[in-house]
Amino acid sequence: MSGTGLWLIGARGSVATTAVVGLLALRAKLVEPVGCVTERPEFAGVPLPAWDEIVVGGHDIVHTPLEKRAEQLAEAGLVPHRVLSAVASGLRAVDAHIRDGYHPATHTGPQSDAVARLVGDLEAFRAAHGLDRVVVVNVSSTEPPVPSVPEHASLALLEEALSDPSRAVLPPSSLMAYAALLAGCAFVDFTPSPSVRLPALHELAVSKGLPYAGSDGKTGETLLRTVLAPMFTSRALRVRSWAGTNLLGGGDGANLGDPEQARGKLESKARGLAALLGEGVTAPLHIDNVPDLGEQKTAWDHVSFEGFLGARMNLQFTWTGLDSSLAAPLILDLTRLVAAAHADGQAGPLAALAFFFKDPVATDEHRFAQQTEMLTKWAQDLS
Amino acid sequence: MSGTGLWLIGARGSVATTAVVGLLALRAKLVEPVGCVTERPEFAGVPLPAWDEIVVGGHDIVHTPLEKRAEQLAEAGLVPHRVLSAVASGLRAVDAHIRDGYHPATHTGPQSDAVARLVGDLEAFRAAHGLDRVVVVNVSSTEPPVPSVPEHASLALLEEALSDPSRAVLPPSSLMAYAALLAGCAFVDFTPSPSVRLPALHELAVSKGLPYAGSDGKTGETLLRTVLAPMFTSRALRVRSWAGTNLLGGGDGANLGDPEQARGKLESKARGLAALLGEGVTAPLHIDNVPDLGEQKTAWDHVSFEGFLGARMNLQFTWTGLDSSLAAPLILDLTRLVAAAHADGQAGPLAALAFFFKDPVATDEHRFAQQTEMLTKWAQDLS
Amino acid sequence: MSGTGLWLIGARGSVATTAVVGLLALRAKLVEPVGCVTERPEFAGVPLPAWDEIVVGGHDIVHTPLEKRAEQLAEAGLVPHRVLSAVASGLRAVDAHIRDGYHPATHTGPQSDAVARLVGDLEAFRAAHGLDRVVVVNVSSTEPPVPSVPEHASLALLEEALSDPSRAVLPPSSLMAYAALLAGCAFVDFTPSPSVRLPALHELAVSKGLPYAGSDGKTGETLLRTVLAPMFTSRALRVRSWAGTNLLGGGDGANLGDPEQARGKLESKARGLAALLGEGVTAPLHIDNVPDLGEQKTAWDHVSFEGFLGARMNLQFTWTGLDSSLAAPLILDLTRLVAAAHADGQAGPLAALAFFFKDPVATDEHRFAQQTEMLTKWAQDLS
Amino acid sequence: MSGTGLWLIGARGSVATTAVVGLLALRAKLVEPVGCVTERPEFAGVPLPAWDEIVVGGHDIVHTPLEKRAEQLAEAGLVPHRVLSAVASGLRAVDAHIRDGYHPATHTGPQSDAVARLVGDLEAFRAAHGLDRVVVVNVSSTEPPVPSVPEHASLALLEEALSDPSRAVLPPSSLMAYAALLAGCAFVDFTPSPSVRLPALHELAVSKGLPYAGSDGKTGETLLRTVLAPMFTSRALRVRSWAGTNLLGGGDGANLGDPEQARGKLESKARGLAALLGEGVTAPLHIDNVPDLGEQKTAWDHVSFEGFLGARMNLQFTWTGLDSSLAAPLILDLTRLVAAAHADGQAGPLAALAFFFKDPVATDEHRFAQQTEMLTKWAQDLS
Repeated sequence: MSGTGLWLIGARGSVATTAVVGLLALRAKLVEPVGCVTERPEFAGVPLPAWDEIVVGGHDIVHTPLEKRAEQLAEAGLVPHRVLSAVASGLRAVDAHIRDGYHPATHTGPQSDAVARLVGDLEAFRAAHGLDRVVVVNVSSTEPPVPSVPEHASLALLEEALSDPSRAVLPPSSLMAYAALLAGCAFVDFTPSPSVRLPALHELAVSKGLPYAGSDGKTGETLLRTVLAPMFTSRALRVRSWAGTNLLGGGDGANLGDPEQARGKLESKARGLAALLGEGVTAPLHIDNVPDLGEQKTAWDHVSFEGFLGARMNLQFTWTGLDSSLAAPLILDLTRLVAAAHADGQAGPLAALAFFFKDPVATDEHRFAQQTEMLTKWAQDLS
Repeated sequence: MSGTGLWLIGARGSVATTAVVGLLALRAKLVEPVGCVTERPEFAGVPLPAWDEIVVGGHDIVHTPLEKRAEQLAEAGLVPHRVLSAVASGLRAVDAHIRDGYHPATHTGPQSDAVARLVGDLEAFRAAHGLDRVVVVNVSSTEPPVPSVPEHASLALLEEALSDPSRAVLPPSSLMAYAALLAGCAFVDFTPSPSVRLPALHELAVSKGLPYAGSDGKTGETLLRTVLAPMFTSRALRVRSWAGTNLLGGGDGANLGDPEQARGKLESKARGLAALLGEGVTAPLHIDNVPDLGEQKTAWDHVSFEGFLGARMNLQFTWTGLDSSLAAPLILDLTRLVAAAHADGQAGPLAALAFFFKDPVATDEHRFAQQTEMLTKWAQDLS
Repeated sequence: MSGTGLWLIGARGSVATTAVVGLLALRAKLVEPVGCVTERPEFAGVPLPAWDEIVVGGHDIVHTPLEKRAEQLAEAGLVPHRVLSAVASGLRAVDAHIRDGYHPATHTGPQSDAVARLVGDLEAFRAAHGLDRVVVVNVSSTEPPVPSVPEHASLALLEEALSDPSRAVLPPSSLMAYAALLAGCAFVDFTPSPSVRLPALHELAVSKGLPYAGSDGKTGETLLRTVLAPMFTSRALRVRSWAGTNLLGGGDGANLGDPEQARGKLESKARGLAALLGEGVTAPLHIDNVPDLGEQKTAWDHVSFEGFLGARMNLQFTWTGLDSSLAAPLILDLTRLVAAAHADGQAGPLAALAFFFKDPVATDEHRFAQQTEMLTKWAQDLS
Repeated sequence: MSGTGLWLIGARGSVATTAVVGLLALRAKLVEPVGCVTERPEFAGVPLPAWDEIVVGGHDIVHTPLEKRAEQLAEAGLVPHRVLSAVASGLRAVDAHIRDGYHPATHTGPQSDAVARLVGDLEAFRAAHGLDRVVVVNVSSTEPPVPSVPEHASLALLEEALSDPSRAVLPPSSLMAYAALLAGCAFVDFTPSPSVRLPALHELAVSKGLPYAGSDGKTGETLLRTVLAPMFTSRALRVRSWAGTNLLGGGDGANLGDPEQARGKLESKARGLAALLGEGVTAPLHIDNVPDLGEQKTAWDHVSFEGFLGARMNLQFTWTGLDSSLAAPLILDLTRLVAAAHADGQAGPLAALAFFFKDPVATDEHRFAQQTEMLTKWAQDLS
């Protein structure tokens, strides 16, 4: 498959920058594809775009050059210094494809004007590189949940409201998803933002024959929960409480340390645990902003459970990861897999990609081993 | 299915006593079947013996009454005080079926004499209760690995050697397995002892049409390893080291704190990790005897892994369990399932029971989710 | 010293009940004085009341008999079953000295009426047992901080306001402290409630020649913080963040899981950390109600610090304790020590008892080793 | 005080290299003195050599240039890249003062020949830089304990044996200490090796009026133990077991992963715990070589303790540090303090420096807070 575009919303963020550095390093065979699921033997025959068939562009509202961002990540231990110098010119090339993102505070006029500009950016990118298809991936800051309005449930009503200069009917993540679909691009939401998960946008995706995937990348505490919770169930052990604390530095910490911003993520985490273990589990959960941790995130979970004859036992774990290192290879995997789904003619939500997400679309399957099987089987059926 | 015997080797140990108390409590509906896998909905239609169809006897080399042992376990928090009094008469009834175990230090004459006595005990038990079948389960102290000798690989040579009064060709666990099979009983090894895993005993089991299962019950650190290791593999993350420390009190701690006794268990744990992650993982592992912990066992594991672009991350967990509470319900599950396999005409090693064991017979499948599927599918095919 | 009364506010709570059971068990030599600081060799010559010279009474707003409460604590693992039966008659005797506590919701008329009744209860108790002195100890539920009003800062204004039937100028903990001082009793606050820490009550204590101590018993996470933080300082290591999560079951969990109720405790914990490490430390802190933990409390702290040449390192700890087991012996220690201070003629805040408290009165010394030295020296100077 | 030499045994090792880089960076004011105890306000008036009054040389048996070693440490995250380039010329200057160390495998002839050469190196260094005094600090690989022989207890016998070409009466660490003292240098042992702790060498130090300090730098697990254990004692809580596991990468891991090499360190750790808590504590302890951890060391400790009425509780901690970052500033502190002691005319073991060591000379005081006080008081008395 040749000519796949990866368009990153939040293209200068840590996750995006790490993904781009990694793609360039993989292309140059500077590193092994550790963390890239699509390089596992199970995916050997799947028709996926090769690393050098992926062209990257994106939107962002900040202007720090990618190369500068990559240097910061090298200081933080995310990118090896030897890789940094080898990919500098590649980063500058990607930088040239990054356009101004949409920001409600600076936009005037109806949202439809913004849409027109964003669609234009995507179409120009596709044309300039002669791409077969483009996958738009949202890795920008998390937005809080939005109140439901009738326009979110009907494409016709939505389109009308977008033309109204006195309204901002869509949050930025959804505006971007709308523009992507309108431009004929597949869409992936790696955040818990509203984004593509409004019924009107589902309607648009299906009508345009476009696949979408999401939401909220699963890279740490929730990954472990979806691995560990099924063990308790299989062994008929009764989980009584599952408490969690997340310490985050970096921009993500600042954003999610704000309770309102964090609400979407906390809700998506809670839904997952309830789906796995039922409703009766006490599950306090915190996200704290701890700036000195930088790109590191640390999660502590304490699980209290009951066994035979009422015996009380517990499990604790501490996960210490570099958030962008965990997320970035999955961005590349998702680009490949969603591109392949698009080429295969699939439209609407891709339930088979639940493996990657905290709050997967179109499925209630949260058990990680089952998600792994779903993914593998689905990919092997692609042709 | 009516009339299933459960014959416990080590019938007065903590695991056996907890299993018997639990069986009596389940029968009297004093407790819910938490920890009993065969009570999960997936096993609803499987033809398993009911709790009140299981009759318990056993061998042991100590003589403390079961009721006394149960009181000790109540003090240690394994058995609720309210249950203790309700099952006292039931415990005395089981006590009446416990016979002297085999101990090499007190036995004189050829091992075949001991075999004859042990077989007699089993046949008398089956006859006295009019049992359809008996499942013998080894929960006695762990034995170290034994050097391989030709007699272990040939049933004919083995039988000859057993008659030689100058030799003790079989370790106690294997002598017991031999007697069980000779008496027409299915066999389960819940320890890492040599037991039924000698080729000559496999030959005997197959020739007598008897199923067997084992070995080394998976209830703590290894359970978690077989749950967590596949996550790293599925996500293409490279585990570099997996260090473990186990703190045990109780008799198990005293036994396994001795490096020679622990050798079998350490080897079985190491085999499992290598099967899951390959050979290149640094994996120091310790078992320490910490008497003040009593029936509690605590395991700490530290996993260091490499992600995208060489990023170094880690996971730690601490598992704090009551060893006998974790093991006892599995003993009851195994009794039911192996009895059903016997009734179904299955003979030889039961690979489908890998779910229960650190070092499963006849399979290399260590991944817990896959083992869960194997078990469920196998059980649903029983008829 | 003979005839010391211990009057417990919240006399039927877990801490009070454990303290009373323990006192009776110590008196009967059923247990060793583990956890009792005043039994350490350093206190050998200090003139403290003996265990059998302490008579217990108290106030509470609930009526569950102490014996029943002790049974509940035995089920929760706080009190050995063998001790329970031996102290039953002693518990009934204490029960007979417990009077109805003050509850604003059920009280009508001016607060001065309530004071008169509470003072009467204390005086009757002292008279009935011919006691030399009485130490009143507050172990009732934590109250939130109260807004400062002029009456809290002046004894004259306060007394006027207490007579006003339209006002409830004092929160319950402070009303109780006021009554205690009025009745000539020394006072200890083991909670972070406002209690005796109002300037008007300080004025009263000094004018009546009564010592007081507090506040907020230091038994877990904060104890460790005051032990560990000085290590970083002594080694010139720079703590950058100190995050904490507390999981509590029992009544304390229900109370402190409510953010408003917890405010006082969170503030007292934060003050301590700032006093130890200065202001620049990020220190998110949570208290979660996890009912299934029962009497257990578990705290996880994550400390991130900077070393030589900017190196980033961290320390984590998990403390798992039984809250009432940790607190109860300190209640007995405080009773002895405050009685001795009273006998010694000391009045006002006892800074030397900072060892016992998260938020000590009359001192900024939070370092545990220094507090230990202060306590020992002070006690050895008593005569 | 001007002209102090620091002579490092193992001058090209990680600890030594970090110390030298740090000294150069401090001198150039590139970094703040985080981790340097002697920069704390308490040491403000103490007559210590300034950073730019310290000249560094040393012995080593490897020849990798210091600059190369510093680059490796920068890759491992111990040294910031920005510092590295700024200190390059300083590193080359120190490199020029490093001489070949003593290695028994390559040395022929009596040990006295080696001594003569080593003494010559030290005297030449002192003369070349016009130094007032030299402090020799051993940071080379840990040696196992040595069997006691009469020559270790008598200086006269020792000197005779050193001249015997058929004997190697002293292990390398002690040979080096002997040479240092003979050359009139103060000596510090930062390892648990035999080194200066032979009675004959004590005799030599005293006779030459030279101070010495040691042994075995306290930078991680043991530091925490000496901070935490006194808390349990002060609170009359009874520690029942204290289990520990240490994961080390780097050269230290390879060395100490070997049980024979680790014996000295394990013994020194065990002595400390017994001194703090008495003999009845179960204390299994492991050191594992985990190469992928690189310069990082991680220790997990599990403390089980008994409280009031027999309640069982526990504390766990995980300490994750960079070994050389923790040790290096202490090397600089010790150099300053021992130089000041020498200038002050003190001879023999410096008990007041127990603060720095796992197994301090001439004192049984292991409690960290008390050691801190001893150090401060002693330093303030220097003049």
